[in-house]
Amino acid sequence: MAKDLSTREENYSQWYTDIVTKADLAENSAVRGCMVIKPYGYAIWERMQAELDKMFKDTGHQNAYFPLFIPKSFFSKEASHVEGFAKECAVVTHYRLKNDENGKGIVVDEAAKLEEELIVRPTSETIIWDTYRGWIQSYRDLPLLINQWANVVRWEMRTRLFLRTAEFLWQEGHTAHATREEAVAEAEQMLRVYAEFAESWMAIPVLKGVKSANERFAGAVETYCIEAMMQDGKALQAGTSHFLGQNFAKAFDVQFLSKENKLEHVWATSWGVSTRLMGALVMTHSDDNGLVLPPKLAPIQVVIVPIYRNEEQYRAICDKGLEIKKQLEKLGLRVKLDDRDTQKPGFKFNEWEFKGVPVRLAIGPRDLENGTVEVARRDTLEKEVLHIQDIDQKISHLLDQIQQNLFQKALDFRTANTFKVDSWEEFKIQIEKGGFIEAHWDGTAETEQFIKDETKATIRLIPFDGEAEAGKCVFSGKPSARRVVFARSY
Amino acid sequence: MAKDLSTREENYSQWYTDIVTKADLAENSAVRGCMVIKPYGYAIWERMQAELDKMFKDTGHQNAYFPLFIPKSFFSKEASHVEGFAKECAVVTHYRLKNDENGKGIVVDEAAKLEEELIVRPTSETIIWDTYRGWIQSYRDLPLLINQWANVVRWEMRTRLFLRTAEFLWQEGHTAHATREEAVAEAEQMLRVYAEFAESWMAIPVLKGVKSANERFAGAVETYCIEAMMQDGKALQAGTSHFLGQNFAKAFDVQFLSKENKLEHVWATSWGVSTRLMGALVMTHSDDNGLVLPPKLAPIQVVIVPIYRNEEQYRAICDKGLEIKKQLEKLGLRVKLDDRDTQKPGFKFNEWEFKGVPVRLAIGPRDLENGTVEVARRDTLEKEVLHIQDIDQKISHLLDQIQQNLFQKALDFRTANTFKVDSWEEFKIQIEKGGFIEAHWDGTAETEQFIKDETKATIRLIPFDGEAEAGKCVFSGKPSARRVVFARSY
Repeated sequence: MAKDLSTREENYSQWYTDIVTKADLAENSAVRGCMVIKPYGYAIWERMQAELDKMFKDTGHQNAYFPLFIPKSFFSKEASHVEGFAKECAVVTHYRLKNDENGKGIVVDEAAKLEEELIVRPTSETIIWDTYRGWIQSYRDLPLLINQWANVVRWEMRTRLFLRTAEFLWQEGHTAHATREEAVAEAEQMLRVYAEFAESWMAIPVLKGVKSANERFAGAVETYCIEAMMQDGKALQAGTSHFLGQNFAKAFDVQFLSKENKLEHVWATSWGVSTRLMGALVMTHSDDNGLVLPPKLAPIQVVIVPIYRNEEQYRAICDKGLEIKKQLEKLGLRVKLDDRDTQKPGFKFNEWEFKGVPVRLAIGPRDLENGTVEVARRDTLEKEVLHIQDIDQKISHLLDQIQQNLFQKALDFRTANTFKVDSWEEFKIQIEKGGFIEAHWDGTAETEQFIKDETKATIRLIPFDGEAEAGKCVFSGKPSARRVVFARSY
Repeated sequence: MAKDLSTREENYSQWYTDIVTKADLAENSAVRGCMVIKPYGYAIWERMQAELDKMFKDTGHQNAYFPLFIPKSFFSKEASHVEGFAKECAVVTHYRLKNDENGKGIVVDEAAKLEEELIVRPTSETIIWDTYRGWIQSYRDLPLLINQWANVVRWEMRTRLFLRTAEFLWQEGHTAHATREEAVAEAEQMLRVYAEFAESWMAIPVLKGVKSANERFAGAVETYCIEAMMQDGKALQAGTSHFLGQNFAKAFDVQFLSKENKLEHVWATSWGVSTRLMGALVMTHSDDNGLVLPPKLAPIQVVIVPIYRNEEQYRAICDKGLEIKKQLEKLGLRVKLDDRDTQKPGFKFNEWEFKGVPVRLAIGPRDLENGTVEVARRDTLEKEVLHIQDIDQKISHLLDQIQQNLFQKALDFRTANTFKVDSWEEFKIQIEKGGFIEAHWDGTAETEQFIKDETKATIRLIPFDGEAEAGKCVFSGKPSARRVVFARSY
């Protein structure tokens, strides 16, 4: 177990914060609730962005950019949206500072008060649909498939690095369609894209499904989501895709002339994932030795550490290390040769282990003689000695294996911590132990709320692939047609 | 000349706005001074970002992300910085809205007033140096080479799309060094990177040099800049790189233990380019037919337009077009086949010409018979007929030629509009005609200010490669050792 790192068992929450800060992913800033994403953490986010961006473009989307500020009145136009988003937010009221007349430094210039306050965007449906009104006249202008990479602000009272911060980075897709069917298909497609990204790139197994009405996005007709299980058995919502019906088109008066020459309101979707995914990544794979990264997202996939006793050995081993680095880079791998002579090998081993580098190669004087290298994998901590001529083939294969193994491990964990529960007594006991509970629910908001108040568990989703199975609501005993997934969540 | 487009001669300013809005690059939003960057414009910006980001990484920089908000008090810590940046800015004073008790919709909740106002970042030196204090202890932590891609806000009174907007997108590099020499070298290096990008990618020739004291960045010891000439003869500052000395390290108390075990203040640089470059791109190359894009930054480099009279021809020509598209894409080119059957070829020709696509291929029934294609280049509007088997080779070559030609044309224009001026009378006449004036200056802020007040011309830069040449100040007649460049500017 790593020095200065709380274990998961001791203090799961502290363990998470320790990893995020000590592995140089992020830290709190001087501004309440806002984080600084450090270079190592940002490099992971950049890899996520690059892959997601490619997936969005492959499905026909284009990027654009809309204003950071939204006039206050825009929020009032969509009735449920204002309840969900326009409350805890950063409000810009003035546009100038001035030197205080009494020498108290700079103060707000009261003469520079905005006529209408501006809200720092918590999400951009309103400003974007206000813009779409000018872009959409005819069915020929549809579908409009747009994504934005941006920062957003929600004035959260209790914040945690990546998981819940006042400012965070995200992407938000906003699409416009001629028919309900097309918009629903789009919302579903983007959920599949998110699930594919979570599973294939982040090695995080996710459940796919729809939210109950209580948990829906403010302004949506239907919210689709992917949910992942963290190592403490809690759920983390890892992405949402919303079918917005004609709500925003009506609120912002966006109509189009159909092929049949009729004026109709446009159908909408929106979908987003955020830097919250960084939190999910950390909490799914890391262990008591520090961060564990899936090879596909690791900024450094292979680190080479030279072991030497004198200057001559240092040079010879670094030369060999550089040779191996170049060889592996030709295969498209991301490799670092840690040739610092200010730190000992043991220090380097710990540092890279803590930072989650998937594969470590160590080369000592004897390896140089024998043409070998010691290979250690971060996920299982297993070591083996390889002949240098085998490296090309074996390292790529090993990275694939690690990626697979991380996914499988997370999937096994979820399976082992998912329980079918059929009585209220059992529910209350099980929820204290953590994990996902598959239980029958009578479909009412009242029961859902009651269960939440009693146990802090919410309905995470109504799974897409849940079998129809008649049963009785775990709480009310009323009839139910399928099980839903309950859990406590982040 | 394009329909609905003002000519440069008629109304240069309107011509610019027409191109930006009608070529779908950007438009004004509902929020005063904030623009919407439309997908076609954003695709160009993404190409700029990708190349700049690569250049930054190739020179050893890493990306990170710092908060959008800066506590008001941070600005007061660096004396000249506060004068330059903390005045016209967006001020967040509250963090909550509520339903008005009198039913007037949502209003600011006065109970949720921030203790200290937050400024939406106009530039991030202060928050970043506040953070660096925790990151830098020893010479081993240096240099720290960090860049941030972000949005920033400056409350400009008169705004113009891309050139001057309240919110804009940019990158800001912030580096920390152990010595003055290293920091100066970094600031100079990044200016060279900007110049290389402007000339090789944007096809915009730039002058490199330093700013006079009056024009320096607020908080800098020296500001390096690149300046480009627009087609109306005005200058546009296309990038700046600042040597900040120890100003911010002192203001935020960032010290390090040197190799000699002495506590010293850190040396700093910062450097940035913004979406303003989009304005420079438009104004340098475009003509009275619309936008002209250099091939290296064009989202679509080649557009293929089928010409047909019936369904059968449409299918055969589209098949051939698709074949050519795939062939060219194999060479790494960005190609669009415009197979819309809702628009006529003439409409498509105008549209792509207006949007600045560098090369257009037209294929008609006779071409199909003869194995030919009509090639039109956007820069010169020249056309030629090529055999399809020659396309691979010729199109790549043609794109290179266009890139070269645009640069050369802009360089020739600048040369033709740069004047050595030695008398005040001549200066006043020449400045009305536009262009760059190379003149002697006595080195005083007073003369500079007087010239600005009289003629609206500022010293754009003191060129790096200006020859030493003794002379007399064009205004005061006092001695001068070299010419500087005066111009009116954006």
